[in-house]
Amino acid sequence: MTVLILTCEEDITADMVVLHLNESGVPVLRLDPADLTDSVALSGEFAHGVFRGHLSAGGRLVSIGGLRSVWVRRPGAAAARAAAPSAWLTEEAGQALYGMLRGCGARWMNHPDAARRARHKPWQLRLAQECALPVPATLITTFPRAAREFAERHPDLVVKPVSGAHPQDPPRAVPTSRVPPETDFAAVAFGPTLLQRRVPKRADVRLTVVGDRLLAARKATAAGADPDEVDVRFAASCEPWRPAEVAPRVAEAVLEYMRQARLAYGAFDFAEDGDGTWWFLECNQSGQFGFVEVDTGQPIARTIAEWLARPGPEEPAPVPGGEMTAG
Amino acid sequence: MTVLILTCEEDITADMVVLHLNESGVPVLRLDPADLTDSVALSGEFAHGVFRGHLSAGGRLVSIGGLRSVWVRRPGAAAARAAAPSAWLTEEAGQALYGMLRGCGARWMNHPDAARRARHKPWQLRLAQECALPVPATLITTFPRAAREFAERHPDLVVKPVSGAHPQDPPRAVPTSRVPPETDFAAVAFGPTLLQRRVPKRADVRLTVVGDRLLAARKATAAGADPDEVDVRFAASCEPWRPAEVAPRVAEAVLEYMRQARLAYGAFDFAEDGDGTWWFLECNQSGQFGFVEVDTGQPIARTIAEWLARPGPEEPAPVPGGEMTAG
Repeated sequence: MTVLILTCEEDITADMVVLHLNESGVPVLRLDPADLTDSVALSGEFAHGVFRGHLSAGGRLVSIGGLRSVWVRRPGAAAARAAAPSAWLTEEAGQALYGMLRGCGARWMNHPDAARRARHKPWQLRLAQECALPVPATLITTFPRAAREFAERHPDLVVKPVSGAHPQDPPRAVPTSRVPPETDFAAVAFGPTLLQRRVPKRADVRLTVVGDRLLAARKATAAGADPDEVDVRFAASCEPWRPAEVAPRVAEAVLEYMRQARLAYGAFDFAEDGDGTWWFLECNQSGQFGFVEVDTGQPIARTIAEWLARPGPEEPAPVPGGEMTAG
Repeated sequence: MTVLILTCEEDITADMVVLHLNESGVPVLRLDPADLTDSVALSGEFAHGVFRGHLSAGGRLVSIGGLRSVWVRRPGAAAARAAAPSAWLTEEAGQALYGMLRGCGARWMNHPDAARRARHKPWQLRLAQECALPVPATLITTFPRAAREFAERHPDLVVKPVSGAHPQDPPRAVPTSRVPPETDFAAVAFGPTLLQRRVPKRADVRLTVVGDRLLAARKATAAGADPDEVDVRFAASCEPWRPAEVAPRVAEAVLEYMRQARLAYGAFDFAEDGDGTWWFLECNQSGQFGFVEVDTGQPIARTIAEWLARPGPEEPAPVPGGEMTAG
């Protein structure tokens, strides 16, 4: 049974995981869907009620029915590097590849449907609330009046994107910023704006979840840090990430989140306040982990490799209430 | 409780459904996400473990918690008609709108995740097989040799797109075509190609499913019809669509398909062979139905209106095996 890794060639974080898989002798097929129809090929036949599919890359041919797991890491758009690329070819190649893989019975990290759903910030906030994780008061709005009323109730606010990274190539992270007092919210009418009560924090927490394994790291806010530097990704800090304990109540809530979101991998960001409470900021289903592993020495890559290497499909998780209800 | 309809203004098929909803006095909010932040506005607040959301369009304000159903018909890209449109604004507005709606508990026709999954042709063929619907032998491949071997076993073939409509604006349907004998399949290496055994048909069948209601229509193949005209959408024919009976075995299989696909609406295309067997060709989760209603007089629009008008959320359907498994 082979582990399939869908990612780009320059993904050195994936290299770390492949190393562990190689050490344990688990067969790996790594390919970038962007290389379809150049160095990657596929074939699937549906006949007499049976499906037989194959993938080929780097001179290796693997049966789709023989995949134990699929790691969707940082795949390129299908057929993006073909000799004559086009939107039509990308659509055809993507539907062919993922359409076949969707029926294969392998375990996914993460399943494309779960991954897509999990990217919606409003959905994240609501699910975190349901799982009893503390969520700072948040407003997403195109009504300037709603923004003004919210700012009256919560004078210390940050603003951040609804959707995450800016869709340029390469994607650009848009920093979370503090909202100055007396801000005029008229421009809110031109685009949905996410306003959130600023959590006065004494640390940032990155909690990486792999299956049912929790690996938490904590970066203390330096004494005398500029309170306007709210986004840890852009703040100047010499504090390293250090391994942290996870309170049982938080662990339970986070695992419930993962179960309901049907994610096998998730990178949670929390702000730790002065009382030690972890406030949910977001869960990035494709969050980077290399920088945490380097700082803390936590075996995240090895844990991912172990998850991917486990034999056989998992039991399906129960359906979250109301999701994908058809009737 | 309001019915939310997401579609473009020029969608006259939606008009038919709105007419029925108006007649039965059910409140309707119809909007095109393309009109976000122009004539459509949204707001949602997450605080103290509670979510309160609102949508506004055409001067009406509706609570997201008060939606009974959402019909995703032909929505434009979010904020596409904004004063200063951009990929970033579309991403932000789409995530805000669908992110809030995803948590609303309303019944969906169809849920975005179910709809997206259901568009994958390889996934459709496999699910149809699992539901015991007869599927003509099909190959999707980038291997010329696999195509040649398949053509030797099945000399009478058609070729069709893997993904459906060509992604130009407006989308263009690509006709299913017969494969001439002695075809050289070398070009298969440049893009996934779907080859399927041609079903010598005596009729085309369009089976529209709305919830658990089946409305079948049949269009007889004219005597002396050109056998090269395999695609009913492009064939010259004076035969009208007429209502048809659905065999119990087919009805059971189709309802199982809908249940596993978690679709509330689906338009199935079958080819009826000389023995009267219906061969599954595809299930279009957003297939048009106006032309069938006009020819047959079948009350499809009214049936959709009735489904949308039903109060309260449905019970979630069971999880299909292996799908969205997280582990």
